[in-house]
Amino acid sequence: MKRTLISTAIALISGLAIHAAVQAANDEPIQPIKPPANINLGMVELGKKLYFDPRLSKSGFISCNSCHNLSMGGTDNIPTSIGDKWQQGPINAPTVLNSSLNVAQFWDGRAADLKAQAGGPIANPGEMAFSHTLAINVLESIPGYVREFKQVFGKDKISIEEVTLAIAEFEKTLVTPNSRFDQWLLGKKDALTADELAGYKLFKESGCVACHNGEAVGGNSFQKMGVVEPYKTSATAGGRADVTGKDADRFNFKVPTLRNVEMTYPYFHDGAANTLTEAVDIMGRLQLGKKFTKDENAKVVAFLKTLTGDQPNFALPILPPSTDKTPRPTPFAK
Amino acid sequence: MKRTLISTAIALISGLAIHAAVQAANDEPIQPIKPPANINLGMVELGKKLYFDPRLSKSGFISCNSCHNLSMGGTDNIPTSIGDKWQQGPINAPTVLNSSLNVAQFWDGRAADLKAQAGGPIANPGEMAFSHTLAINVLESIPGYVREFKQVFGKDKISIEEVTLAIAEFEKTLVTPNSRFDQWLLGKKDALTADELAGYKLFKESGCVACHNGEAVGGNSFQKMGVVEPYKTSATAGGRADVTGKDADRFNFKVPTLRNVEMTYPYFHDGAANTLTEAVDIMGRLQLGKKFTKDENAKVVAFLKTLTGDQPNFALPILPPSTDKTPRPTPFAK
Repeated sequence: MKRTLISTAIALISGLAIHAAVQAANDEPIQPIKPPANINLGMVELGKKLYFDPRLSKSGFISCNSCHNLSMGGTDNIPTSIGDKWQQGPINAPTVLNSSLNVAQFWDGRAADLKAQAGGPIANPGEMAFSHTLAINVLESIPGYVREFKQVFGKDKISIEEVTLAIAEFEKTLVTPNSRFDQWLLGKKDALTADELAGYKLFKESGCVACHNGEAVGGNSFQKMGVVEPYKTSATAGGRADVTGKDADRFNFKVPTLRNVEMTYPYFHDGAANTLTEAVDIMGRLQLGKKFTKDENAKVVAFLKTLTGDQPNFALPILPPSTDKTPRPTPFAK
Repeated sequence: MKRTLISTAIALISGLAIHAAVQAANDEPIQPIKPPANINLGMVELGKKLYFDPRLSKSGFISCNSCHNLSMGGTDNIPTSIGDKWQQGPINAPTVLNSSLNVAQFWDGRAADLKAQAGGPIANPGEMAFSHTLAINVLESIPGYVREFKQVFGKDKISIEEVTLAIAEFEKTLVTPNSRFDQWLLGKKDALTADELAGYKLFKESGCVACHNGEAVGGNSFQKMGVVEPYKTSATAGGRADVTGKDADRFNFKVPTLRNVEMTYPYFHDGAANTLTEAVDIMGRLQLGKKFTKDENAKVVAFLKTLTGDQPNFALPILPPSTDKTPRPTPFAK
């Protein structure tokens, strides 16, 4: 009886401690990333192949992974992307990491979800420069794909619906839990240094969290680029206004996630900021009317670097070979 | 004593059986691929990162894996490769798979080994368009690389020597043992179908093995393209003559490996043959003066498809991020 009482007391105290830690995490404007749930693994394996398959492009050279490179934070680390025939893209490729947590996809949110996004670049003449029909023709000529689509979707015919569903399912797995910041949120109080914690305090007190909050530290709202001071850029993207047609939405862009931001340089929709130091300085001035000192800036940057989580960890997919019937890519066709 | 005698007899018989199987394999003009030995694993891990790192190119977009894609048989599956600013390459990208077994590297053998090859594309203005000095500047600005080079080579400075050594060490691991044909060579007599075996018999009896032999089923000699009939091509490559300066070496090319040939389409140094059927037909006529019937051709092709071995199996490498000091790529610079 006494033992039971003591056990109950210990359980109660442990419970309270856990509750307190969880409560602490909940009180913060940023929440730890949860590993993905409710995942269809067969669809993920198929989507992973499609994500890496350059045969979904006209040239046979560009895959999803070309511009959203999973070796490099899910981006291409260049200001604006390279498309078919080396065309210069109009906007910086946003990271695919944690993109399942975004309120919508693309900088202007023109795709409601990952599935709607996935079909875009394939048929964009400035990107993969193919068409959905041509992509399906390629896939249907490859027995390895036909079998895998049948296994996963139970259908004999492949359509762009299944292609984008599979790519989206794979992308749902590309979350990056377990960053040092998340470890700290979950109760490991020595996971951050004093400078990193000071940077987080500045990040909250200066107002950065007003937009960069939640599980992805961003990605959940559209905000004007240049609130206090206008943002000067040669990029022509109009932002959210291009979708809504409303002038009030001009230069409103989806707030980018700050998860893995150490890896996703250069920054902003035009990729004009090469370093985090630059990005923090510009954001402070243009969005908050605040000039961070050199020391404050360094502390905020130190905090931002604690947001790098576990990167994707999977075997490089091997793609099923084309057959005699597979239409061949035309990289140099006029 | 009796037990010992019986055991000895059994051991002797087993030994003879194994000997007979090995003997049979040795009697064939093709030998099974051996897994790589004497491998420096630290160097492999470093070389794997470098192999996937587009920061070794001027644009920040092209890595070794762009044209020697390990998801696609170690090739790009287009007739001639795409280089910096979408330049059209002069020759088909040979597979990197089993390239450690080649007598020399490149179609004309101008590099003696993998290490000598690895530096070529980085500095080739039509390929990665960078320079060795600029590539080293990038690597030395990245602490993750500096530490890893120091760990592997014990030096504080990075030079192109270590870069190419590491890439070559990684490439040595890219052999593909365990094809169905190798299983058959090693004694699994039901590994091949009757048609595949008939194809192999034709392959030997028609003279294909004169050039396509050894562990890599090729890669070990230079031969003239167009022995019986001249080969018509718009490609300007002179072959071995470009290296030796001898007219007798004109249109002599390194015999390509036929390992994984199902995955390494299109074929020939100009990538002009889209299918194995086409390639077998042309090789028969131009090199051997032999017109394969449709049935013979199909059997040879069936045999060739048994040469697909275990593909590379490793986790996609995660690249250490650039820092504020890292020179940025210039994909669109004039």
